[in-house]
Amino acid sequence: MMRLSQLFVRTLRDDPSDAEVPSHRLLVRAGYIRRAAPGGYTWLPLGWRVLRKVEQIVREEMDAIGAQEVHFPALLPREVYETTGRWTEYGDNLFRLVDRKGADFLLGPTHEEMFTLLVKDLYSSYKDLPVSLYQIQTKYRDEARPRAGLLRGREFLMKDSYSFDIDEAGLSKSYNDHRDAYERIFKRLGLPYVIVKAMSGAMGGSMSEEFLAPIEVGEDTFVRCTSCDYSANTEAVTTGALAADTGTYNAASTVSTPNCPTIASLVDYLNTHHARTDRAWAASDTLKNVVLQLRQPDGTTETLVVGVPGDREVDLKRIEAQVSPADIETLDDAGFAKHPGLIRGYIGPQVLGKESTTGVRYLLDPAVVAGSAWVTGANEKDSHVLNLVNGRDFNADGTIEAVEVAAGDPCPSCGAALEIARGIEIGHVFQLGRKYADKLGLTVLDQNGKQVVVTMGSYGIGVSRAVASIAEAFHDDIGLKWPRAISPADVHVVVTGKKDDDISVAAEKLAAELEAQGLEVLIDDRVGVSPGVKFKDAELMGIPTILVVGKSLAEGNVEVRDRHAGTNEAIPVNNAVAHVTALARSGS
Amino acid sequence: MMRLSQLFVRTLRDDPSDAEVPSHRLLVRAGYIRRAAPGGYTWLPLGWRVLRKVEQIVREEMDAIGAQEVHFPALLPREVYETTGRWTEYGDNLFRLVDRKGADFLLGPTHEEMFTLLVKDLYSSYKDLPVSLYQIQTKYRDEARPRAGLLRGREFLMKDSYSFDIDEAGLSKSYNDHRDAYERIFKRLGLPYVIVKAMSGAMGGSMSEEFLAPIEVGEDTFVRCTSCDYSANTEAVTTGALAADTGTYNAASTVSTPNCPTIASLVDYLNTHHARTDRAWAASDTLKNVVLQLRQPDGTTETLVVGVPGDREVDLKRIEAQVSPADIETLDDAGFAKHPGLIRGYIGPQVLGKESTTGVRYLLDPAVVAGSAWVTGANEKDSHVLNLVNGRDFNADGTIEAVEVAAGDPCPSCGAALEIARGIEIGHVFQLGRKYADKLGLTVLDQNGKQVVVTMGSYGIGVSRAVASIAEAFHDDIGLKWPRAISPADVHVVVTGKKDDDISVAAEKLAAELEAQGLEVLIDDRVGVSPGVKFKDAELMGIPTILVVGKSLAEGNVEVRDRHAGTNEAIPVNNAVAHVTALARSGS
Repeated sequence: MMRLSQLFVRTLRDDPSDAEVPSHRLLVRAGYIRRAAPGGYTWLPLGWRVLRKVEQIVREEMDAIGAQEVHFPALLPREVYETTGRWTEYGDNLFRLVDRKGADFLLGPTHEEMFTLLVKDLYSSYKDLPVSLYQIQTKYRDEARPRAGLLRGREFLMKDSYSFDIDEAGLSKSYNDHRDAYERIFKRLGLPYVIVKAMSGAMGGSMSEEFLAPIEVGEDTFVRCTSCDYSANTEAVTTGALAADTGTYNAASTVSTPNCPTIASLVDYLNTHHARTDRAWAASDTLKNVVLQLRQPDGTTETLVVGVPGDREVDLKRIEAQVSPADIETLDDAGFAKHPGLIRGYIGPQVLGKESTTGVRYLLDPAVVAGSAWVTGANEKDSHVLNLVNGRDFNADGTIEAVEVAAGDPCPSCGAALEIARGIEIGHVFQLGRKYADKLGLTVLDQNGKQVVVTMGSYGIGVSRAVASIAEAFHDDIGLKWPRAISPADVHVVVTGKKDDDISVAAEKLAAELEAQGLEVLIDDRVGVSPGVKFKDAELMGIPTILVVGKSLAEGNVEVRDRHAGTNEAIPVNNAVAHVTALARSGS
Repeated sequence: MMRLSQLFVRTLRDDPSDAEVPSHRLLVRAGYIRRAAPGGYTWLPLGWRVLRKVEQIVREEMDAIGAQEVHFPALLPREVYETTGRWTEYGDNLFRLVDRKGADFLLGPTHEEMFTLLVKDLYSSYKDLPVSLYQIQTKYRDEARPRAGLLRGREFLMKDSYSFDIDEAGLSKSYNDHRDAYERIFKRLGLPYVIVKAMSGAMGGSMSEEFLAPIEVGEDTFVRCTSCDYSANTEAVTTGALAADTGTYNAASTVSTPNCPTIASLVDYLNTHHARTDRAWAASDTLKNVVLQLRQPDGTTETLVVGVPGDREVDLKRIEAQVSPADIETLDDAGFAKHPGLIRGYIGPQVLGKESTTGVRYLLDPAVVAGSAWVTGANEKDSHVLNLVNGRDFNADGTIEAVEVAAGDPCPSCGAALEIARGIEIGHVFQLGRKYADKLGLTVLDQNGKQVVVTMGSYGIGVSRAVASIAEAFHDDIGLKWPRAISPADVHVVVTGKKDDDISVAAEKLAAELEAQGLEVLIDDRVGVSPGVKFKDAELMGIPTILVVGKSLAEGNVEVRDRHAGTNEAIPVNNAVAHVTALARSGS
């Protein structure tokens, strides 16, 4: 039995100053975690119980699909990650260190390489496959901006698993087994989720999907079709090739556009001085050329211009997902200084492209379809060009998905309107294919005695992040509301009596009886703490059932509070154990 | 049920080339662990099961004394360890790294500082105490010579706990609670242990004791009295002040001793050319002055000479324990070059000591008692001095326990003979006192409203090292022999039949029935593997009970092999489940 008189916990009335999101605020205030380092948290006893319950559910479902648990070191030698290129590709996100002998090491951000080598070490025949291995282990990433408590830390607990198959069909099955197991895990955790198409990022590989908890504070944005079952992280939305514009347009002409530093002012100016006859000019008639800098993990940079319709924003995260492992940022002043041919505010495609005078690579969003006409910069101050037609008057070096996807955009699958929401990435499943096995030489003999490269999948669940995600999904202004499966206890007994009085004696007896039924009991047996404070703490800590033993005991009653439903119910004390036990066993 | 046909394991016939000790050899050969990095091991499924069982026993016994489990990050900011001086004191043993922002971090070797700050963060009153907190966590130490597999790694699993009390009496109780819990843990693990007096090393604090598994490959040497209950790590043996020699001796005289580079040659020469009348000269008449270099963690060095009787060796580990956190080594040529006054092979105390011509600090082992006379170097080549009396003809700067303790040396407690053995450190309990609380400002209000500094204890068990220690304690030439409490399974069913024949069907049925009894079953259901190989693997893997289902099934029998006793027993198949279940439940 956990006794609040002895439990290592202190609740806080005030929000921690660095907490941006509810899970962070409440987990700290309720005494589940404490900050120990930038992006590093200490788990206090209550938090540790929750984390271990989540971990155990993950473990059980992994075991259920026949995955086998192993455990790797976190401190890994550079060489292996060098072989796959990830020592460099991970860039600043990797914690690197040097040992006393001068050898380079890293703190593992994910373990594809090590698992690949382990299987290579032990297995050599198709008969050994398929095999799926996993670990539940502390991972390290030197995040640029650790934030939101457990949601984006630099040291976190992750379940990572890896499947090894002889062929695509095998990978497909392993992938689906994991995907199904993830659905069971999130259902058991009580955590709402959506599965969306995803980009593979630094991981490499082909197909991948994310499990997102649809929660507003999440860092990921995803789309869902309002008609078909298409859903994708916005990074992974592919508009694809759109039908060409087959209209005919007048020849391009340059016009003077003084004092038009913004698209809005340009459109106003055109409507005043160069009004079109069919309709008014709109921002969507303009072609905005955004100058970016692409930085490879090895430090080399490239200037890149992306053209999008003037009514749309550029989504750097989408672009970044396509140029991974490179980073992307808007070009700064120093960068512009190196390109005198790029006149800020008046850049037009006439000077863009590998073959152009500037030699700067130029990519167009698919929305800038072939044959369409645009108003765009004339590459001199206070001048724009009208009727510049894509394919007639200029050519780009290629296309890139660049615009910020917006609600109402057409679904790439069926054309109906997309809706947009935010989510927390709680799981990710990848069909890696042969990338790692190829680079690290993981082959087995097939049935014909031929060496074949093994095909792999990689599957992750953020275990500590899941705790925070659940806290995000289940809380209110006054505290947490744990789903029963991972609550640190089944029942929180609040004793409002004094030491050794009838109320305390009855409460201790009830608590002991509940424990005898196999329930996990937290009892607030603190002396000298007011009932009001005890109720507040119980609400803050969020155990789903609160059993209040107080004054109504004189009438033979105790009170059962349901933290989720927000209900209070008087129950005859003689019936309390059976009632609370039934609640706990109902799982709700 | 674990099936060898699917279990991720490969046994090896040959010893790994880098394995020096049986536990390392056998844990690798039996497929429990694989090397992943220098001093870093991957736990394969069988090994992971053992480790988690050890961990669970440790956890249960910690919980039983009311210690509460928490979990800290391993990646910690420099500042805290700077405050206590350990950032420097740990020297090269600490893994240090720099994050992307240039901030210094370390990988925690032990967490005194963090626990101290956590209690400071949450608690403020004597009413909150006592409290004991623990974690079971991966620790990092940049060992100069990682060796012996899990016995001395650079990344390892440790249970570290910390007690916080208001006064000495409280610390004493917390210390004893932990000590008792450790005894229960090692008994449950089946791991033999001795408790010895220990030095506190870099940890600081006053009293400390080690739990050593008395195993020859251990790195620690300890003494046990043959008469009383004294026992100590040799590092911690304190001879103390011995009775002064009150004999009277002739005046010191210098004699020529050509070609006497060693003590043996010196003694021979003296017996030939300067024979004493009472008895022959012996090595124990000579005073050996060993020149050492002391290196502080901040890099500063000091030359130090230690004087010991010529028949004894200097024990650098003992000296190091007394000068911690400094390192000690014998002075090299470059070091001697800086001290022209020290004539190698002929160094005598006449030129030693802070007040002497060389100014080099000079310490004597207590065996060089006051008033005793010595043959020692005359500080010129080929010359020695006879009858140089300690206190009459020379004085040292102090004493230091320096000689290698030998079997038969007198017990510091009762004077009887000591015996000597080697052991593996499996646990360590420290009375830290107020060192950390003082430096980090951990105070609470006492009953009189006065701020008092909290007094602490620190307690460690090497969880991964315990696995190796158990393997050291329980194995033979052909394999491991797990104690039942931590065996990866209760029974190893060897099926010597062919696929789907009567033997296989019967074996599967038995295995299922054993599992239904709650036993953990490993079944060797591999097809195309000979019975001989299966027996060898079973012996290597070391599960205590092996159930062989084979040809004798025709007579209605199966065979039960006891891996510890080395016995084989034919059992009627109908009785097999009851028999094996009884064995498993007997716990032996």
